[in-house]
Amino acid sequence: MPTMPRTAITRLGDLAANDRAALDRLLDTARVGHVGLLDGGWPVVIPTAVARDGDALLVHGSTGSGWMRSLAGETPVCVTVTSLEGLVVARSAFESSMHYRSAVVFGRCTSLEGDAKLRALDVLTDVLLPGRVAEVRRPDAKELAATLVLTLPIERWSLKVSDGWPEDPDDDVASSAWAGVVPMTVTYGAPRPAPDLRDGVAVPPSVVALAP
Amino acid sequence: MPTMPRTAITRLGDLAANDRAALDRLLDTARVGHVGLLDGGWPVVIPTAVARDGDALLVHGSTGSGWMRSLAGETPVCVTVTSLEGLVVARSAFESSMHYRSAVVFGRCTSLEGDAKLRALDVLTDVLLPGRVAEVRRPDAKELAATLVLTLPIERWSLKVSDGWPEDPDDDVASSAWAGVVPMTVTYGAPRPAPDLRDGVAVPPSVVALAP
Repeated sequence: MPTMPRTAITRLGDLAANDRAALDRLLDTARVGHVGLLDGGWPVVIPTAVARDGDALLVHGSTGSGWMRSLAGETPVCVTVTSLEGLVVARSAFESSMHYRSAVVFGRCTSLEGDAKLRALDVLTDVLLPGRVAEVRRPDAKELAATLVLTLPIERWSLKVSDGWPEDPDDDVASSAWAGVVPMTVTYGAPRPAPDLRDGVAVPPSVVALAP
Repeated sequence: MPTMPRTAITRLGDLAANDRAALDRLLDTARVGHVGLLDGGWPVVIPTAVARDGDALLVHGSTGSGWMRSLAGETPVCVTVTSLEGLVVARSAFESSMHYRSAVVFGRCTSLEGDAKLRALDVLTDVLLPGRVAEVRRPDAKELAATLVLTLPIERWSLKVSDGWPEDPDDDVASSAWAGVVPMTVTYGAPRPAPDLRDGVAVPPSVVALAP
């Protein structure tokens, strides 16, 4: 029986918030997490869509996926969610770093069924593309049977926030080197219609709302 | 002794390239990877800067970092590098997905010393901000002593590329729902100078070159 790693909040920089609200803000921003689990004793890290639903993280995938079946079997899991938000350009390579927020959630997943499963799929769909649930048909029985939906309680977690300025020593500050931060953001480009899209179908509000 | 998971190339969509060159393109695009390792038998996933150097991935961090020391001790590791490149908006939630490229590299790291360590730090610096090495002073002895630089051979790896159109069944294609792809890109904002920047220090070429 493995011991769950110690969790802690690490505050870096001057603006870091270190409470559950800050965790939720990160989890609600990022669409993708990295799931860590064991495969024959070796660590494996897999990117997948995640969504927060209250006090749980939701993950979904195919019933044909080995790692999803492993998670459904309540194997120990670590889900890490990272948002990269800038380059910290210091006056030396050593002090240079990045602005980011990163959270890890440790635990064991359980599989959702019935109405809870349907509702969780709606949450996942609307996190990936807000408003999309109202625009598409309901999942059918075959689709539901092909999908595993897992929930991981947000109980053991850790949050790390780096959002400060470069911290160069005095000698470097006095030098002629530049220092600052270059913000990074994810932006959406113009929607590209599918080649088989019927004539006259307009871009839906959910997609229109992504425009910068 | 854990068994290393089977690695494979998974081709999704119609444009996927599935060779080492495609792996290198991904590794050379992404600045951050997610490192998976074991902590007391529990999987832990940590985001960190990565850079490809020929047939190896480089990772660096503080000698004070427990997980870096664990990696330096040749513990089994999985490094996953993911680039999120678009939303695949299908006519149903079930067929909706994302465009992404993701690679996993399995192995054990070894620690670099001396000239190899210095050179690897330059590679990491210039991957995070191309051209920056030429603009900053060299690392000093104290900084080098405080830094672990690890190399992971790119030998056991797997690449997954999703870049296709939605694959809706005929009934859905005939419906009034929209389908397509919304590209996602990372863009850099205007550089913000550090509060302690000396007057008259210009934004350097490396930072100017990030502008969209």
